[in-house]
Amino acid sequence: MTQVTDSRQIDPDFGLAVRLFDELAAATRVGRGIERISYGPGEAVAHRLMIAAAEAIGLECRIDAAANLYMTLPGRDRAAPYLMMGSHLDSVRQGGNFDGAAGVVAGLAVLSGFKAAGITPAMDLTVMAIRAEEGAWFDVPYAGSRAAFGLLPPTALDTPRIDTGIGLAHYIAEAGGDPASLARGVAMLDPRRVAAFLEVHIEQAPVLVETGIPVGLVTGIRGYHRFVAARTVGAYGHSGALPRRSRRDAVAATVELLHRLDQVWADFEAAGRDLVFTTGVLTTDSAVAGASKVPGQIDFAIDFRSLEPAVLTDCVELARRHAAEIGAAHRVEMDFGEMSRSQPALLDAGLRERLGRHAAALGIDTLEMPSGAGHDAAVFAASGVPTAMLFVRNENGSHNPDEAMELADFASAVRILMRFCVDGAA
Amino acid sequence: MTQVTDSRQIDPDFGLAVRLFDELAAATRVGRGIERISYGPGEAVAHRLMIAAAEAIGLECRIDAAANLYMTLPGRDRAAPYLMMGSHLDSVRQGGNFDGAAGVVAGLAVLSGFKAAGITPAMDLTVMAIRAEEGAWFDVPYAGSRAAFGLLPPTALDTPRIDTGIGLAHYIAEAGGDPASLARGVAMLDPRRVAAFLEVHIEQAPVLVETGIPVGLVTGIRGYHRFVAARTVGAYGHSGALPRRSRRDAVAATVELLHRLDQVWADFEAAGRDLVFTTGVLTTDSAVAGASKVPGQIDFAIDFRSLEPAVLTDCVELARRHAAEIGAAHRVEMDFGEMSRSQPALLDAGLRERLGRHAAALGIDTLEMPSGAGHDAAVFAASGVPTAMLFVRNENGSHNPDEAMELADFASAVRILMRFCVDGAA
Repeated sequence: MTQVTDSRQIDPDFGLAVRLFDELAAATRVGRGIERISYGPGEAVAHRLMIAAAEAIGLECRIDAAANLYMTLPGRDRAAPYLMMGSHLDSVRQGGNFDGAAGVVAGLAVLSGFKAAGITPAMDLTVMAIRAEEGAWFDVPYAGSRAAFGLLPPTALDTPRIDTGIGLAHYIAEAGGDPASLARGVAMLDPRRVAAFLEVHIEQAPVLVETGIPVGLVTGIRGYHRFVAARTVGAYGHSGALPRRSRRDAVAATVELLHRLDQVWADFEAAGRDLVFTTGVLTTDSAVAGASKVPGQIDFAIDFRSLEPAVLTDCVELARRHAAEIGAAHRVEMDFGEMSRSQPALLDAGLRERLGRHAAALGIDTLEMPSGAGHDAAVFAASGVPTAMLFVRNENGSHNPDEAMELADFASAVRILMRFCVDGAA
Repeated sequence: MTQVTDSRQIDPDFGLAVRLFDELAAATRVGRGIERISYGPGEAVAHRLMIAAAEAIGLECRIDAAANLYMTLPGRDRAAPYLMMGSHLDSVRQGGNFDGAAGVVAGLAVLSGFKAAGITPAMDLTVMAIRAEEGAWFDVPYAGSRAAFGLLPPTALDTPRIDTGIGLAHYIAEAGGDPASLARGVAMLDPRRVAAFLEVHIEQAPVLVETGIPVGLVTGIRGYHRFVAARTVGAYGHSGALPRRSRRDAVAATVELLHRLDQVWADFEAAGRDLVFTTGVLTTDSAVAGASKVPGQIDFAIDFRSLEPAVLTDCVELARRHAAEIGAAHRVEMDFGEMSRSQPALLDAGLRERLGRHAAALGIDTLEMPSGAGHDAAVFAASGVPTAMLFVRNENGSHNPDEAMELADFASAVRILMRFCVDGAA
């Protein structure tokens, strides 16, 4: 057992991690923020940087039909179920450098540590760089990881990119993928062959910052019911002359609905139910609207997220009921449009417990917590892969240019991950 | 008195009116609507059409330093105080053909009627085609008519056009005006020289439609207190992850404010106070916002209008108080920006009474009513000119492409105007 005891001393390659974060930021900064559009040029640059690093380490690189990237350190038993780590490399518009990328860099730091120590693991260790996790570009949840399991519905390939209107299949092909295979449900990953999936990710809320704990152990991932193209249609009119009784004011109706839904959230929270509610987009038509017109139209997006499937269903039903009532009162049509959804996912309690023990042995404080945001880990969990997530404390949230993860906190999470791999695979 | 009795039979030139409406629509249609930007190309085309018509009638045309147009049928006593008619020729973005233009066309139909009947009026009759009445392009109320009285503050000349950012002075000069004279307060009109001003205008609310009456006699004109560049600033964050207690959600705060202000309106209305309230523009930042982000910013416009100055003052104070309270609760900054305002105006009771008598003699039903919208008539009234307005029944409101005035109703208003002129000037 000497070998195992020694291997617990393996250090992750933090020099590589720092260099990769710097290279990613330099290559994908646009203005103040980071832009790595799903299946777009910034994401492609990030993939190329990872491939270069993986090849320098001496890892095997493979790319699947969704252009996901797999970087593998071969194990002694190549037929054994293998350990996977990783996360996504894309970002929202004007996002930050760490959301997603931290999980890929963490995995490479671990594998480079193994290689530098000259240790061949018992089974393959694979770092996956996942495509298109952010729903900001295509209204398709977890496109890359679902495709890896052959779970992307063929119709999802037609989903237009939100800013160009061009379909997902076009961009997948452009990134080197094979949409025709995806349409046939060809899978790269067999859940029975994956021993575990571990995703390191920055926390996107200030819970760890507020509690002063560097690493979170995630219990579950919120699902969402989301409408990105809701619209209220009334009638334009003169703002000074049209009496209240004659108006069909799209804004008056919509602000009433959105304020009520905010109250719904407060009520659920007071009742101890898990929920977040957001209106991220709310826009009158700049080609027609004006300060001296009663507004005849407004577009908006609404996003419900919860760990509890019933809460999501209840919220959408409440929203529709309020919209019908308010729409009738204001004589406007409220149409939520298509709903996109992802199911909540519970993560593996056994893995979480092991990660907690390794953290304790390393003297690193951890906090068990839910994930408010969706993550590819939810797809692995839903596919039956034992799945865990490590959150890294992060200031200022994510999905914005000001996200700020301390490298010391990142290092704490990577040390836990390293120790888990050494314990399970060395 | 034979001459006067005969002259009461003078018919307005409705053929000219129909032709001018058609020419205006053909020359200034953009897509579905009409666009005659204040001091922009569509307004210039409209002025050229009126000049051509006036010259064909044989009227004297003059242009002042604000590029307002005066078309005069000389009277027998050219030194006597003269009668003015008219309205504006500009429109909002995607407006209709009659808002403003109807008053200019009405005046020309009357003057052409005099000319065709060979009648020289006792005093000059002048039709004014006024510039830049719509606040939609420059946040300057009644720019043209105030300039005619030398009442435009020099600073107003720097006001940027809302879509280009280029200042009012530039566009006035481009339209053939002389901003330097305006800055010195040079006036074209001396209120003591104007016996009366009569503005025919479509009604911009459905009151006449709903009551089945073709012509309204306006008692007063609502003033406004308006904010076109209000902004709420919070902080962007992840929509799924950021807990309620940690959010600084600009949309949640703003919809609460706007819904409360709608309730304020309902309360004032219930108390019998005159008020309309509108949020015509409400827009998250398309470069940053997204369905999966807590929104960190939203821009909006608010518009209070009332016949009662105290109501306007009270509403702005209430809005500021609610904004302070809601802003603190949501940890966001709400800044209303610059306020623009116009004062309510009461119109001349004597003129209104005379117009009512002429209408009755013609067998035309009229309704005494306030004007919800602002009109250049308010500037004449405030300058001490006895002022009246005739509203023409109009379907679908104004400030939109669907305004629909029946020519028969327009003809009723012009007949009343003709009879007034004949009675007062023939």
